[in-house]
Amino acid sequence: MLREAIYHRPKSNYAYVYDKKTLHIRLRTKKDDATEATLIHGDPYDWAEGEWQCKTKPMEKIGTTGLFDYWYAEIQPDFRRLRYGFQLTDGKETLVYTEKEFFTEIFKKDTAPYFCFPYLNAEDIFDAPDWVRDTVWYQIFPERFANGDASNDPKGALPWGSAEPTPTNFFGGDFQGVIDHIDHLAELGITGIYFTPIFKATTNHKYDTVDYMEIDEQFGDKETFKRMIELCHQNGIKIMLDAVFNHSGFYFPQFQDVLENGEKSKYKDWFYVWDYPVQTEPMPNYDTFAFTHMMPKLNTSNPELREYLLEVGRYWVREFDIDGWRLDVANEVSHDFWREFRKEVKAIKKDVYILGEIWHDSMAWLQGDQFDAVMNYPYTHAAIQYFAKDEISAEEFTYRTTDAMIMYPENASEVAFNLLGSHDTPRILTVCDDNKDKMKQLFLFLLSSSGTPCIYYGDEIAMTGEQDPGCRKCMIWDQEKQDRDMFGFLSSLIRLRKENEAFGNRGTFRFVTADSSKNYVMYTKTAASETLLFTLNNSDEPVTVTIPEAFAGASDLFTGEKPTGSTLTVAPHGYQVLTVK
Amino acid sequence: MLREAIYHRPKSNYAYVYDKKTLHIRLRTKKDDATEATLIHGDPYDWAEGEWQCKTKPMEKIGTTGLFDYWYAEIQPDFRRLRYGFQLTDGKETLVYTEKEFFTEIFKKDTAPYFCFPYLNAEDIFDAPDWVRDTVWYQIFPERFANGDASNDPKGALPWGSAEPTPTNFFGGDFQGVIDHIDHLAELGITGIYFTPIFKATTNHKYDTVDYMEIDEQFGDKETFKRMIELCHQNGIKIMLDAVFNHSGFYFPQFQDVLENGEKSKYKDWFYVWDYPVQTEPMPNYDTFAFTHMMPKLNTSNPELREYLLEVGRYWVREFDIDGWRLDVANEVSHDFWREFRKEVKAIKKDVYILGEIWHDSMAWLQGDQFDAVMNYPYTHAAIQYFAKDEISAEEFTYRTTDAMIMYPENASEVAFNLLGSHDTPRILTVCDDNKDKMKQLFLFLLSSSGTPCIYYGDEIAMTGEQDPGCRKCMIWDQEKQDRDMFGFLSSLIRLRKENEAFGNRGTFRFVTADSSKNYVMYTKTAASETLLFTLNNSDEPVTVTIPEAFAGASDLFTGEKPTGSTLTVAPHGYQVLTVK
Repeated sequence: MLREAIYHRPKSNYAYVYDKKTLHIRLRTKKDDATEATLIHGDPYDWAEGEWQCKTKPMEKIGTTGLFDYWYAEIQPDFRRLRYGFQLTDGKETLVYTEKEFFTEIFKKDTAPYFCFPYLNAEDIFDAPDWVRDTVWYQIFPERFANGDASNDPKGALPWGSAEPTPTNFFGGDFQGVIDHIDHLAELGITGIYFTPIFKATTNHKYDTVDYMEIDEQFGDKETFKRMIELCHQNGIKIMLDAVFNHSGFYFPQFQDVLENGEKSKYKDWFYVWDYPVQTEPMPNYDTFAFTHMMPKLNTSNPELREYLLEVGRYWVREFDIDGWRLDVANEVSHDFWREFRKEVKAIKKDVYILGEIWHDSMAWLQGDQFDAVMNYPYTHAAIQYFAKDEISAEEFTYRTTDAMIMYPENASEVAFNLLGSHDTPRILTVCDDNKDKMKQLFLFLLSSSGTPCIYYGDEIAMTGEQDPGCRKCMIWDQEKQDRDMFGFLSSLIRLRKENEAFGNRGTFRFVTADSSKNYVMYTKTAASETLLFTLNNSDEPVTVTIPEAFAGASDLFTGEKPTGSTLTVAPHGYQVLTVK
Repeated sequence: MLREAIYHRPKSNYAYVYDKKTLHIRLRTKKDDATEATLIHGDPYDWAEGEWQCKTKPMEKIGTTGLFDYWYAEIQPDFRRLRYGFQLTDGKETLVYTEKEFFTEIFKKDTAPYFCFPYLNAEDIFDAPDWVRDTVWYQIFPERFANGDASNDPKGALPWGSAEPTPTNFFGGDFQGVIDHIDHLAELGITGIYFTPIFKATTNHKYDTVDYMEIDEQFGDKETFKRMIELCHQNGIKIMLDAVFNHSGFYFPQFQDVLENGEKSKYKDWFYVWDYPVQTEPMPNYDTFAFTHMMPKLNTSNPELREYLLEVGRYWVREFDIDGWRLDVANEVSHDFWREFRKEVKAIKKDVYILGEIWHDSMAWLQGDQFDAVMNYPYTHAAIQYFAKDEISAEEFTYRTTDAMIMYPENASEVAFNLLGSHDTPRILTVCDDNKDKMKQLFLFLLSSSGTPCIYYGDEIAMTGEQDPGCRKCMIWDQEKQDRDMFGFLSSLIRLRKENEAFGNRGTFRFVTADSSKNYVMYTKTAASETLLFTLNNSDEPVTVTIPEAFAGASDLFTGEKPTGSTLTVAPHGYQVLTVK
């Protein structure tokens, strides 16, 4: 076996606390190399006659990528302590892999060489809010969802939907619009709204915060905001706000004060100013987001700024009972700040969801002390590349999806934020080249995956739109112009996710087949009482597949019909879901 | 090249902040595979004509183990942000390794696939106290160092050195004894004392804490303790205490209260009691260290217990100006507690040293938010296996040492606590089978290594002793019975470590040769102005080695003599150190 490929590291996505009794242990080996993997495990202090009293447990192969196989076992140590290693065989050779060295058989004279998970302490458990596991999100870009109150429209606002969106025009969307359309959301079945920024700002997207303690007046007042939240809560819908704590807007008064008073400003250390006088042109002489002088970076080492931001975090939870914070550019802010932020907001409301926007490997933020989850771009990106664009093979799709699933602890993956599009990307139907079958495949995959799916406003009625500003069109409220078939399809998936344990977030996902030549994939979702088999055909031709033996006698999840014979034919860009109980 | 062997992960020992401007980047490849490695790096927002404006920097091969080569480069990103990848070649093939995939050439259309070090924020910098880098520690087991005040001797204490140590006897060592012998410590040149526990307890080792706020009366009162610390500080000697926060002693009054009052005890949640009544036999029904009913585990989830322990941490720093805390069984206590502990004690004294006792991979505690360092057992264990016991080959020794050096960020390794023996192991001279040449080799290696070396009391005068209690003999104060040659040797190494930049902790360590057949190793230590070449012969025969070209004209560090000719002969279990400026 290839020793160089074998990998494990405690206190990472390879070994982590799943719940207060359970550890998850994963192992990487070279692809198609080991035929069996066994977890060797025991209490470090359990000895008899000079030998460590370890036990063994078979591991399951849970995924494969281009280079590697991944193995998994869960374990509930009697005394919450664990020493462990791995026994591997390929039929010819047996290897025992430990932290310090390889052995050829289980070594019992000393536990020192083994891996160590020292103690399962309650305070360290990754405790994302349980409600998130069952949430289906809906993203609202508030300027464009619905205009319910013309009296707060910004000057020059255009009649709803009367023009294409531009980077600078306004249409007057507001909270009253959300209140007015709560029935639409309830009918769709979503259970959480993620709002892009709502705080006082100058642009239509509001990412240029001017005052973190005030709602932008174009969206309504705090009273209306409170009413909207109460109504959403009554309808079982949680509310998540967008916090831009990495940088302020240019017109944030504290930054304006620095521009005006330079070194004399009492806010000078709220930012990273390199020297004085402060300049914005030709290049800013202060830290910014990217190189944009309009977005001065906030200095979270400064105690006053820090307290200001923490109070922002607390205020909207305490006063308005919001349920989540989505943290913009989260990885450029310090870990130290996020640790304190978590303590502070969770002290007010224990089950607030904290979601970081991070595009790269986020393990360093998902140790239980900072975020509950991250935006899961790698996961949905692979699905888009495969189903929407046909840019990668069926095998490559399963490799990338597996990579994304292995990248984090399972309890972090379960609450990861999965999105097919947003205000920053072309709309998914446009990405699918207006092919609604492809779009349905993607939503079927998204809704049957681990993680919490998010639907970008308007996708449920099959709106189109290119990269922003095109993807930020006004929501279409004329039912004649809505795609009600898509709405029905999506709401049925959402219902399934709620009602069918195997289909939803509590079901275990495993790939079964990835056929790059016929261009289809099969995966299962398994719960205690039921297993579902998904077959998704990504080709322009019908595909006929053999039904795996375990699904003999299964029936179609949607129609209840039983396939006749041992094969199944799936339409071009179509899907079949079989269920067996 | 073997793709399966290539490894990197940000925010780990492979990529970390070294100082406020500098990142260290390391890479793993299969041994003897790549012939060159290059760091591809750039600011994520630095684009021109649709291409990412990345640069390249050659990496240095810094170590080799049985399976892998390790590469290194440091980088100071202009704007404290970094995207990066690696270009590898073996002369035939070129590979570009990124977080997401392998390319065959540098990919400039998107930074998304690359590794990300998002931002170098001041609060996240690993900031171990600078003084530790230059500290040479001395471990005192206070019951056995010196008896300076007979009036506080425990009942039944034996005359100093009159008997072999047993698990239960007492000889009356105390703080006055340390005060009386400050000249010995000053002459040796040590600059820090690590005391095993001094708090009120019943045993001679005091690991069974009864009161964390009181000094055990056999060691003196708080006044004497304060005088001792002041005297040490006047002599440039720092003081580190041992904190047993994982568990209390059985006679800790709060635990006794639980034993007595069961569920009614107000301290019941200071421990993990499973059910009532509390029992100690045949098995305790509460969490313990190991399975010892005498050591009830403390519940750091409980706010009162937590505040008690935090106040212990603060009290001895605030009131007695101690310089360090060594944390016993540190990895079985929660990360969450240690994060708060760090904040609290460093708020009182910014440069307190926090040292965790961890025997396994400790990366999860060395992220800057918990410990400054760990007890570096793997490092010294390899040296003992090689020089003292000849159990492993020269090559295996260099592999294990390299593993230990790569295991953590360099700034953590620089302040790691390196020890050849302690109150828990046989004395190093005994391990060396009384061979003083071997012992000298080990101390030469220890004192010229990265990390902070610790000398166990009495080793400087070549005391012997088996596994405890044998290793806990009374210190010998009769100079006639001390090995003054060993004392002179050790004090000269300590002086060198202070005065010679290349020899000390600021010099860069690299292995040059590991010859398993002749059984010797060579390594260099390099500073700006000087490079030292160490040759250590581990065989029973003299070894003749060719002097590397770079050391032509070099002279002996100790004698100043220049070798005649191009070779060097090193005595059995001897050493030679050449210097070139």
